[in-house]
Order: sequence, then C-alpha cells, then structure tokens
Amino acid sequence: MKAFVYGGVGKKSLEDRPKPEIADPGDAIVKMVKTTICGTDLHILKGDVATCAPGRILGHEGVGTIETVGAGVTTFKTGDRVLISCISSCGKCEYCRRGMYSHCTTGGWILGNSIDGTQAEYVRIPHAETSLYPIPKDADEDAMVMLSDILPTGFECGVLNGKVSPGSTVAIVGAGPIGLAALLTAQLYSPAEIIMIDLDDNRLAMAMKFGATRMINSADGKASDKVKALTDGKGVDTAIEAVGIPTTFELCEQIIAPGGIIANIGVHGQKVDLHLETLWSQNIAITTRLVDAVTTPMLLKTVQSGKIDPTRLITHHFKLDQILDAYDTFGRAAETKALKVIIDA
Amino acid sequence: MKAFVYGGVGKKSLEDRPKPEIADPGDAIVKMVKTTICGTDLHILKGDVATCAPGRILGHEGVGTIETVGAGVTTFKTGDRVLISCISSCGKCEYCRRGMYSHCTTGGWILGNSIDGTQAEYVRIPHAETSLYPIPKDADEDAMVMLSDILPTGFECGVLNGKVSPGSTVAIVGAGPIGLAALLTAQLYSPAEIIMIDLDDNRLAMAMKFGATRMINSADGKASDKVKALTDGKGVDTAIEAVGIPTTFELCEQIIAPGGIIANIGVHGQKVDLHLETLWSQNIAITTRLVDAVTTPMLLKTVQSGKIDPTRLITHHFKLDQILDAYDTFGRAAETKALKVIIDA
Repeated sequence: MKAFVYGGVGKKSLEDRPKPEIADPGDAIVKMVKTTICGTDLHILKGDVATCAPGRILGHEGVGTIETVGAGVTTFKTGDRVLISCISSCGKCEYCRRGMYSHCTTGGWILGNSIDGTQAEYVRIPHAETSLYPIPKDADEDAMVMLSDILPTGFECGVLNGKVSPGSTVAIVGAGPIGLAALLTAQLYSPAEIIMIDLDDNRLAMAMKFGATRMINSADGKASDKVKALTDGKGVDTAIEAVGIPTTFELCEQIIAPGGIIANIGVHGQKVDLHLETLWSQNIAITTRLVDAVTTPMLLKTVQSGKIDPTRLITHHFKLDQILDAYDTFGRAAETKALKVIIDA
Repeated sequence: MKAFVYGGVGKKSLEDRPKPEIADPGDAIVKMVKTTICGTDLHILKGDVATCAPGRILGHEGVGTIETVGAGVTTFKTGDRVLISCISSCGKCEYCRRGMYSHCTTGGWILGNSIDGTQAEYVRIPHAETSLYPIPKDADEDAMVMLSDILPTGFECGVLNGKVSPGSTVAIVGAGPIGLAALLTAQLYSPAEIIMIDLDDNRLAMAMKFGATRMINSADGKASDKVKALTDGKGVDTAIEAVGIPTTFELCEQIIAPGGIIANIGVHGQKVDLHLETLWSQNIAITTRLVDAVTTPMLLKTVQSGKIDPTRLITHHFKLDQILDAYDTFGRAAETKALKVIIDA
C-alpha cells in the first residue's frame, strides 16, 4: 500500500509498505477514505517529537471503512464507516476509567507517533471499540475528519478548560486551524466577545467571518494594550493559547483578568516565564491538556444539527499520491492561505 | 495610642499615634484585643511590598471590640466582639458581587498595607459590615485570630483551589504556618495521603503531629524522586505551594500527576520557569489566589465544632509593648520554632 513516511529530521516520502494486519484481538484494520495533516506532523518532520522514530507512517486523523476486525471486536464489522479518534484508548486502565483517555497507559496519542498512522491506504487501529466512532449515514466525510482531532482539541483544551460561558470575554491567541476550531466551538457557549489575535491579516479576516467579534494584529507588540483598551482595563475572562511559543503564552499572562483562566492548547517546545510576581494574587488558573477526545460524540451532534460547520476549516483537497504537495501547501500556510487540507486515500 | 510602624526598608518601631477616627459612614473603630504577625509583614519590612509606604501601621489580623461605628453601620454596635478579616470588602462592586472580595475595587488587602492596620490599640475598619464578623460568646479569642487570614488562606488558596478530595494524594511544599494551615484544613476533605515537604526537620515533625501522613526533607534535592517513589511514579493529585520562591514552585511542577492541580499560596517576588515543554500535555491546572476570606464563617463553624483546632499553630504570646520582641521571635523562626505569635493589645 501507499504510505507517507517520516524518514528522520526533514525527510519525508511516499512509500510502498506492507498492508497492516491484526496484531491483537482488539484491533481493527481500517481502509482509509480521507485523512488530513496536523501541525503536529510538521513538528515531527522538524524532529521535535522524540517518541516518533524515523520509518513511521504519520497521521492521526481520518475516516475510513472497517476492513477486518480482531476476534475481540463486537461493536464494529467489515464495511462499517468509522471516524478515527486521534486518541487511542483501552477503556480499562485507571486513566481511561477517569475519562482521561489522553493518558491511557497503552494508548493516548500513539497513531502516527509510536505506531503507524492514517496517512496511508490502510491503518491498524488498536483498542478499536473505544478508539473508533460510527459515522451517521448522512454525514459529510470531510466534516467528520475535523472531528478526529482539531475540533475536540480546540473545544476541550480551549473552550471547556477555559470555561467559556454566556456573556464572558474571550481572547484566542493564534488564528491557525486550532485557534479557529476553538473559535467555532466557543460560540456554543455564547460569550459576549471573542477577540482574535494573530500576526496574519488573512487569518484574522477569516476569523471575523467565523464569528470573532474583534481582531488584533499583534505584529506591533501592542496587543496587550489593545485588549486592555477593549475591556475597560480589566483583561479577558478566558485567554486561549493556540500557538505554543513563549511570546504568545506570555501575552495570555498579560491580558488575563482577575479571576480568569488561561487555557493552553499550544504544543510547547520550551519553557515559558510565568510571572507569579504579579499573577500570584490575581485569582487566575492556567490549564494544560492533551485532548482526551471525550467530546467527539457530542461535537458530532453539533455538526449534524448544523450548529457548527467544520468544513469551513478546509481549504484544499489532494489525493494520497499528491501528499508531498499537500505537505508543501500546508507547510507554507502564510503564502497558500491553507488551513486544513483533506487527502483522499 | 501605641502602634507598630513600618519606617522604610528594615526600619520598625513602636510609636505613639493618634487614635483613629470615623472617616466614612461605613467605618467602625475597633479596640484591638489580640493581633498577630504574618509572613507578609516581614516582606513589608524587607521593602518587598510597594503599596505599603513608610509610616504605615502594620497588621491585618486580629479580634477586638467595637468602639464606635459610622452612621451607615447597622449590624454592629459599640461593645460587640468582632473578628477582623484581612480582606476589606465593600460588598457592592463587581468583584464583591462575584464573591471575589480580594479584588474589591475599594478594599481587598488594604489593612496594614495601604491603610493603617491592626498592630495597635485601635484600628479603623472601612466597609465594617462586610469586613468584620461577630464572634460567638464561647469562642476562644486566640483561635479566632487564626481566622483573620491564615486559616482561610490555606483553605481557599490551597485546599479549595487544589480540589483536595477524599482518597486523593496531596503534597504541601512548605511547613511554615501557612502550609500547616493548609494541612489542618485539607483534612476536612479526607485525602488518602498528605506529604509534607520542607527543609526544617522541626517543622516536619510538627506537621506529622498535625496530621501529615509522610514527610520529606528536601535539603538533599531529591524530594521529587521521593514523591514519585511514594506514588507509584505518578506524582500527586494536588501540590500546594506554600513558600513563594521559584525552587518550591518548580518542585510542584515536577511532582504533579497527570490530571493534577498545583495550587499556589506563596507570595512570589519573581517569575518562575513554567516547563510547558513537558506540562502542555499533562492535563494539569495551576491556580493562584489572593484569599477572598469568603470561607471565614464556614471555618469558624469547623473551629467551634472542634473539627479544627487552630490554636495548635500558636507558639508564643506577647503584649503589644513587647511587639519588637515578637517580630524578632517570629523573624528567627528556624531558631525559635515560632509558628504564629499572639499579641495582646
């Protein structure tokens, strides 16, 4: 089968690989229909993700059709259309039983990381019964791909952790795909204001179309002052960090109101300065989270009912044999205006 | 009247000052019965608290008797015994109406900071009706003094923010008075383990008597490994920071389990390193809080019912005219084994 393979820092290729086989009674082999590329895949290619070894097939998102199932799988059968969660979970370990699937002791984010992933014609899914979701008959497959990772990540790590609530004031730092996913799902809770902050005017304009009420281009270094000016000097109730670098996290520290929450979504590669000399008395909370993807079924209902249209995040379509072009387009997003790219297997 | 006055960095004196007078219809003048010294007062003497100007009468804790009240005060009258909250609150502003009294726009922590405090024969209490509590007839006045600040601070900033719960594992970093107050109040929620961490063997031994289940002397720099060894390598559900320096906060970052909460109580004078490069995916929360003292009435009931005996925190008694000795004893706590010192007015 064709598969997109990480070959070590900066090396990527589309290769012929053996079709995966059932290795455990809980496995399913899924024939991929659609997948996508995540910002995290770009991090892997830069060598930032130590758990991902060269030779790995990347990808942790997608929809497909069940090809075969292991002897222990009773809830899925050959031919079923399924949504693949970015988080594999056994459903049995201490963390799974607390609903913290991201920390499953034999799962978590392993697809396209410590085991082969979805950017291929076929993928082996361990713990299939608790890591796949059935797809409704009338569901749009492009929309479903957005439920594998980006929508639950923006929602759980940003909106839920940040306790976005009716009438509240929210800032989202970073208007990339994940920031926009937080923007779409934040509106489920009817905040009064959503201030979008980014360096890219194109993405900010997109955010306004997606429902942001204000936009701030932070290129001049005055974003903090501008947020204060918009909020009677108080700052925001929720600051969602959707970039993953010290500058953007520290901006969240500057704009958070007393009693507010900084909800981190960003994947950070280095430490940040936490200014406890001012924040110790500010009654704030800072949250971190690897998505548990516990809200996937709930978000699927919001998509099916038309409350959220995640296909607005999709800017490009490619075939699997064009995946190197897809990576190139996604990797040069500022130029190509790419958000999410769909890859048909 | 006699009053303890901050005279600028390193300067302190017991002085004669005019008796305070009603300045606003909401004021009360309280004749002090007992007060105490807080670690924060030592910070002021070092010049760490910019809002506190030389010439200020210090102190934000104590019990007393109402001497006079302003025209607007109807719930207290001359002769009433009262507990003085370290937090003055108007009860009317946006923050007060959210129960976040610490950020009252005309109050908060102002006593012995931006207005004259309780280490004197008399004190003026603004917003008296919402900043004083009546004391039950049979209440122990020494115990009541512990309800002004230290008990609600340990409880609200540490135990409540840290979501200490039955069966959970808690570490308290710092076994000074505030860490011990967190230890006493944590037991209201029946955690499975409370691991006390400090550099001082005397304080650790005291903590064991107060209900800690484990103690770790962190002098060898191996506290993190020891906590991991006690928790199957996972870390603790709640880490309470009760010191206020980078080393102790960063220890909390090292020992927090996935899904856990770091509840900061410490008053920090400088930034700390937040290791988001590891913590971003750990589903943790970090909280900060200036005590709101919203739980004072509730804690008073736990004291009156005998669930908590805060007089165990009291090691020394002085008279007001011995307050310089009291500061000396409190300031050399490692030597004198002082925890809280009571000063009779």
